[in-house]
Amino acid sequence: MTTTESTELRNGVDVPTLFATLDAVKANPELAKFQFRATNRWVSGTHNRGTIHGFYGAGQEMTHNQAMEFDADHPAVLVGADHGPTPAEYLLHALAACLTSGLANIAAARGVTLTEVESTVEGDIDLLGILGLSGEVRNGYEQIRVSFRIKGDDPEKLRQVVEQSRKRSAVFDVITNGVPVTIDVTAG
Amino acid sequence: MTTTESTELRNGVDVPTLFATLDAVKANPELAKFQFRATNRWVSGTHNRGTIHGFYGAGQEMTHNQAMEFDADHPAVLVGADHGPTPAEYLLHALAACLTSGLANIAAARGVTLTEVESTVEGDIDLLGILGLSGEVRNGYEQIRVSFRIKGDDPEKLRQVVEQSRKRSAVFDVITNGVPVTIDVTAG
Repeated sequence: MTTTESTELRNGVDVPTLFATLDAVKANPELAKFQFRATNRWVSGTHNRGTIHGFYGAGQEMTHNQAMEFDADHPAVLVGADHGPTPAEYLLHALAACLTSGLANIAAARGVTLTEVESTVEGDIDLLGILGLSGEVRNGYEQIRVSFRIKGDDPEKLRQVVEQSRKRSAVFDVITNGVPVTIDVTAG
Repeated sequence: MTTTESTELRNGVDVPTLFATLDAVKANPELAKFQFRATNRWVSGTHNRGTIHGFYGAGQEMTHNQAMEFDADHPAVLVGADHGPTPAEYLLHALAACLTSGLANIAAARGVTLTEVESTVEGDIDLLGILGLSGEVRNGYEQIRVSFRIKGDDPEKLRQVVEQSRKRSAVFDVITNGVPVTIDVTAG
């Protein structure tokens, strides 16, 4: 049993199930259509609370094990009460998490063992944009830098795994290429 | 005291401090240069944990009141252990939170009172992209829809507040227009 488990689980990834999932989607591409969701409720000032629970995927409505709540706020220096990270920091977290989840799967699929993966994401932003004090400064980040420190098998293989994760990352794609967003308002 | 407080605090926003902050930045635009950060550590499989704590802004290194940790994972249907939302869901949360924080500030600055703000964000994604099963399907969301339900003052004013928040949202800008991202790897 121990031998079987150590073969099937690499980096904590259930490799046979990963390949079986790929085969199932190849046979029925409709299974790949997902819709992710988040809801948000304003609390006070810049403090608001997001909830993530249900999603659609693999042909059915599904839920996470539990509803998860995430507070967002501005820090005191930006006239908030610091009840949580700023929304712009959650965006950086999403990017690091996506690249990291992806590389763990990719490494497992390639038979590459990981022992440690850490990353730091930095985003430079000039608030003259969102404060409405400049018509030339954009609202969002001017640039984002991700630094990975990764240990395990051969360094060149590890670098290739990170590169492949970049090439297949949903959040990296959204952040670098943009996505159309519509906003609908029911007021009153 | 009660009268003074009700005048100065609108929607929980300290309006005099908000305007004083705008004046301070107008006088010294360097104060507007911020750098936000997130770090991430891989746990196992697609499970990893992000930390948000320090940032640079207003001319100095700063920290949030406390370091905050956020687990990310894939759900079971995507061969994860569901220890947290997917990274792509954190991105949707960031968008709702940014629009909501912004509209609370903008409403306060305009003297518009809010009583309730809720939103839902939906992102459609075809996983054929990230699974590497199609060369034509993008990795990220194909489209994102935000729906606000907002109550308080005159509905037309509320709609204008949402529209102004969209125009000045950092996360909306990043997600709709994209940002250059560099990835640096130290391996071995």
